[in-house]
Amino acid sequence: MKLVCTKKNLNQGLITASHIIGAGNTLPVLNNILFKTDKGRLKLSSTNLEVAINTWVGGKIEEEGELTIPARLVNDYVNNIAAEKITITTQNQTLFLEAERAKTHIKGLSSDEFPLIPKAEEKIYTKIEGKLLGEVIKKVSFASAFSETQPEISGVLFFFEGKTLTMAATDRYRLAEAKIELLEEVASPKSVIIPARGVNEVARVVGQGPIDIYLTDGQVVFKTEDTELLSRLIDGQYPDYKQIIPKSFVTEAEMGRNEFVQALKAASLFASESNNIELDLTPQNKQVVIKSQSSQTGDSEIRLDAKITGQKNSVVFNYRYIIECLNNLPDEKIVLKAIDSSSPAQIVPVGRDNYLYIVMPIKI
Amino acid sequence: MKLVCTKKNLNQGLITASHIIGAGNTLPVLNNILFKTDKGRLKLSSTNLEVAINTWVGGKIEEEGELTIPARLVNDYVNNIAAEKITITTQNQTLFLEAERAKTHIKGLSSDEFPLIPKAEEKIYTKIEGKLLGEVIKKVSFASAFSETQPEISGVLFFFEGKTLTMAATDRYRLAEAKIELLEEVASPKSVIIPARGVNEVARVVGQGPIDIYLTDGQVVFKTEDTELLSRLIDGQYPDYKQIIPKSFVTEAEMGRNEFVQALKAASLFASESNNIELDLTPQNKQVVIKSQSSQTGDSEIRLDAKITGQKNSVVFNYRYIIECLNNLPDEKIVLKAIDSSSPAQIVPVGRDNYLYIVMPIKI
Repeated sequence: MKLVCTKKNLNQGLITASHIIGAGNTLPVLNNILFKTDKGRLKLSSTNLEVAINTWVGGKIEEEGELTIPARLVNDYVNNIAAEKITITTQNQTLFLEAERAKTHIKGLSSDEFPLIPKAEEKIYTKIEGKLLGEVIKKVSFASAFSETQPEISGVLFFFEGKTLTMAATDRYRLAEAKIELLEEVASPKSVIIPARGVNEVARVVGQGPIDIYLTDGQVVFKTEDTELLSRLIDGQYPDYKQIIPKSFVTEAEMGRNEFVQALKAASLFASESNNIELDLTPQNKQVVIKSQSSQTGDSEIRLDAKITGQKNSVVFNYRYIIECLNNLPDEKIVLKAIDSSSPAQIVPVGRDNYLYIVMPIKI
Repeated sequence: MKLVCTKKNLNQGLITASHIIGAGNTLPVLNNILFKTDKGRLKLSSTNLEVAINTWVGGKIEEEGELTIPARLVNDYVNNIAAEKITITTQNQTLFLEAERAKTHIKGLSSDEFPLIPKAEEKIYTKIEGKLLGEVIKKVSFASAFSETQPEISGVLFFFEGKTLTMAATDRYRLAEAKIELLEEVASPKSVIIPARGVNEVARVVGQGPIDIYLTDGQVVFKTEDTELLSRLIDGQYPDYKQIIPKSFVTEAEMGRNEFVQALKAASLFASESNNIELDLTPQNKQVVIKSQSSQTGDSEIRLDAKITGQKNSVVFNYRYIIECLNNLPDEKIVLKAIDSSSPAQIVPVGRDNYLYIVMPIKI
């Protein structure tokens, strides 16, 4: 292999490809990035056997070739050298990087040992705006939970229908659901479960432009102009979560999101044993009262101004489930909707109806 | 106890006092801050038995009293509540905090259990500019090393003479020394060894104004307008480090500090087994060549532009010792001075002569 590329492009490609590579893989080649010349560009590939990334770096290819190189080492090295252009050559399973003021040999492993990354389906299923997809993933995927026994809730549901993608995640104690518009209407509805870890990697590589989505039986591919992310799908039936979303509520309290988070954090200091926090919604006082107590440390009562409609209500929650949702929303104000102390409550942002979060109360 | 103070002042006082309190002390009262009314203010005290802090918070005292309260809990709580003013009362070893929208009970421990913090000497020894002291501490104290067998090098030497404080720290492989002007000439020279952990706490509490320094046989006190930090002294003879500072050098190389750090970081990726990096100073090329190699991963050679005077030279260093020094300096340019591969080298900033760093080479 021999090629010349800019440090900036190589650095960006290495950052994109190396993120999915974990530390201390027992199979050494999984710690490596595959460097391979591909149709006039350098293709960098990585895989953790669940998610794979191919990203292409522009350059001047003088000689074809391929070799795998320790991901963290080459990534850190290129990141730290001062250089405009880098010449890459390979010889005897060693990569030679040469810049204006730096020369490096990095020992690699043969590309024969690198796992085969399956190709993307040829026909695009749909398109979506990358930036929007990335934002929505962050608001949904955190609600999933890794589970050996229920692999389907380790993933995020992607349901495509018409011009809408509905994304949902749950750990059976709480649920996040968001809807996004697609750039192209799908020919037929499809529903897939993508591992949450893969979904989070999608959020990282999407960039600003449109994303092509390819679907096959066992795999989904998200493709930007110069990067593709392939993830296996989770086999299984996603929980029928629609049935637990209440149709109506008894009390609704509108609050500032930041103020609510801060009050919950203060209250949580007295909830270290159980994580339980009581929220009293009192319409006549226009206040949400946040109560917590601990036999060890003491107790706390914090009052928060709120616009409250409906009846007086009192519900106990695991505060972590509420803070996690609020921390993942960008909205200034949210509405907490409750029925009673044993029914699911709902959090929605004020001013848009494409997101909802359901949280189960703690029954005392 | 009953008093009213602002949340802002209380928060600041709690942050100042709680930092020295470690996690999981076996003696529970050491996890606590002592709240005590003191001459019209609230005094907050903490100790880790090596360093103690007293800090005073202005307020309206309505009833005298004292109680110790878990430091982290009260600190995090006050930090997270939205409030202007806070009313503090105590009853039955419980602290009651009441703000406009928050009420809290925090269980405490009797102040009888709290260690006695010795008083500061009545006569000031000298004064120093707080901001300057804090800055210089950061450039020196990192060079010390915790040692059970050589307690004196676990500390930082403070040598007061005339209008100058000389501060030095060493782990016997490297040495940092800085000089600062005092605001008041000392009556007689004195030399003390202050535990490095205490010195670093001084840097954190000094603020912007002048600091009064009190010295007794076993203790030093640094006092700002509203905070005093007391540290025990280390008994022992500080190493006679002056004798290892070379009088003259064979080669001097002036380089950009940031460029040098970045090149060392890149080179260090191939020095993971030994931490050894070779620096070749070649006057004719006006370059410092930084070489590293690893039997596992490969090798690297990075060239750095430098103004070099004197003879060609080559020295091997533990790169961590050089990066640590460079990271603690604010200067744009530094000079590396060398004699030969077995003599100590020196790093000084360009443009000031009040700081020097000595590092021993690795003999191969």
